[in-house]
Amino acid sequence: MLSVEKYQKAFTSYLKDFIIPKRPAGLYQPIKYILKIGGKRLRPVLTLMTTEVFEGTFETALDAALAIEIFHNFTLVHDDIMDDAPLRRGKKTVHEKWNINTGILSGDAMLILAYQLFENYEGDTFKALTKLFSKTALEVCEGQQYDIDFQNRNDVTIPEYLEMIAYKTAVLVGTAMQMGAIVAKASLEDQHNVYEFGKNLGIAFQLQDDYLDVFGSAESFGKQVGGDIIENKKTYMLLKALELSKAKEKATLLSLYDDNATSANEVKINKTKQIFEQSGAALATKQIIENYTQKAFIILESMSISSDKKALLKEFGTALMNRTV
Amino acid sequence: MLSVEKYQKAFTSYLKDFIIPKRPAGLYQPIKYILKIGGKRLRPVLTLMTTEVFEGTFETALDAALAIEIFHNFTLVHDDIMDDAPLRRGKKTVHEKWNINTGILSGDAMLILAYQLFENYEGDTFKALTKLFSKTALEVCEGQQYDIDFQNRNDVTIPEYLEMIAYKTAVLVGTAMQMGAIVAKASLEDQHNVYEFGKNLGIAFQLQDDYLDVFGSAESFGKQVGGDIIENKKTYMLLKALELSKAKEKATLLSLYDDNATSANEVKINKTKQIFEQSGAALATKQIIENYTQKAFIILESMSISSDKKALLKEFGTALMNRTV
Repeated sequence: MLSVEKYQKAFTSYLKDFIIPKRPAGLYQPIKYILKIGGKRLRPVLTLMTTEVFEGTFETALDAALAIEIFHNFTLVHDDIMDDAPLRRGKKTVHEKWNINTGILSGDAMLILAYQLFENYEGDTFKALTKLFSKTALEVCEGQQYDIDFQNRNDVTIPEYLEMIAYKTAVLVGTAMQMGAIVAKASLEDQHNVYEFGKNLGIAFQLQDDYLDVFGSAESFGKQVGGDIIENKKTYMLLKALELSKAKEKATLLSLYDDNATSANEVKINKTKQIFEQSGAALATKQIIENYTQKAFIILESMSISSDKKALLKEFGTALMNRTV
Repeated sequence: MLSVEKYQKAFTSYLKDFIIPKRPAGLYQPIKYILKIGGKRLRPVLTLMTTEVFEGTFETALDAALAIEIFHNFTLVHDDIMDDAPLRRGKKTVHEKWNINTGILSGDAMLILAYQLFENYEGDTFKALTKLFSKTALEVCEGQQYDIDFQNRNDVTIPEYLEMIAYKTAVLVGTAMQMGAIVAKASLEDQHNVYEFGKNLGIAFQLQDDYLDVFGSAESFGKQVGGDIIENKKTYMLLKALELSKAKEKATLLSLYDDNATSANEVKINKTKQIFEQSGAALATKQIIENYTQKAFIILESMSISSDKKALLKEFGTALMNRTV
């Protein structure tokens, strides 16, 4: 019954049929473009899946799932401007294909279009979805702000980093799942639990993204390996390496990550990887990923759903962490 | 009972007490800054006034009024980035005081904060306000896109221009008033009428803004007189002058508005004013302002409110068009 492929297919088809106004083309063409570029559609799939976990039919959750996906893409459009990113999933970013003003305005319209999708739900469901959405959307903005702030700070702590990725990434995963539960009219307790399940899984997922950026293979990761190291990103692994490594290695790491450092990328990546491994930071990252994943699974156990549903959600979580979905 | 000063005072005090989160400061400080800069707060005053017109108490409409004002300021923050404007009401714009990324992200957060304010209303009112807000917000984005498009087009028609200002400016005036009616639980017919009253008055107001830009005095207008002429803005008056003026004057006008023209600003303003007057475009602008104002007043007459309420709204509309409020 719960089949990721089924949800992906249903969602892709629903997205394809979603009517975006034609005029003014300068506003709506970029929205069509970014929504077509694709991606794994994990968040909307989670919404649909959660609806069925709570005995709803996934078709009723398609609008909520679409709102989540449009919102996610809105954040990509605006974040790509802020990060000056030329490419997104191998295609030109919106502000690169058009210009910054188009990126700003089309992004704004996407945020509003996401809100409009909740109008297809009746009173209480509408309010619950809209309220959760606003709370989460604001947290995502806060997460993005912390991410920006951290680039100019050298005293970021590990708890601060974990809070940042929770806001920037994980709350939307939790929200995608809670929306499925809301549409299925699950109890508030179940809604809360499935949100926490998704949030913890989301944190684990983001930490694993950081891990794979260093130790993944190019094909399984889908992005340039070592990208975070080249960009001096303050990831959990770096912060942990600075905490765990001896004075000499710490000094080497700091000099490698100095904004004026001149090492070739390959040299920098290799030296950094070595320190990440020797200091125990790589292992600590694996452990914390496991901790958040287990935390998610413990919450799952406490939920009032049948054990086969639990097994399926656990299976999906495991597949997600092994990047096979 | 209906006193603009009373509403202004109540709104200013409510805005002052509105709690904006402290952290992250990089996200929320710019929001506090732009909301403090001020302005006449006409839109929220219209919301409060309309609630009392429909026998509600204005205090119940303060959250809706605040949502409208925060949304309006959100559009200013993002528009100022797009227009590369250094100043807003004599103070530095957000992207000038901070940077473009701050302007984008703080603006996004403002749009979400506006939505959150509707959460203070119960089910049906919440849905009615949120739905109207989304529709209008999207139209404002469309209006901004048309405004951008028109800058690069030489074949803008008068109906297109009127549609653009309706979307960019007037629908929000109509919406501010309809929200007051929604909070007061007015009938759908009254809601519709008060929206149309506000929208027509909003169009008249914007056309008058264009008129005063040319023929106003610096003190009553509050902005640089002739600014639209210097910036080659395709206003109603320009489009009408191109339509009405004889071949020779039309050629002069086109050469004055050529992007490569080199006339000193003062010369350009004076010559343009002369053609606007001689061609009859100035008079035609006055007439269309009067037409939209009268259209608003006719709608007002059809409304199911007492004649003293009608007289008061008419008085406010007249004061607005004479810029005494």
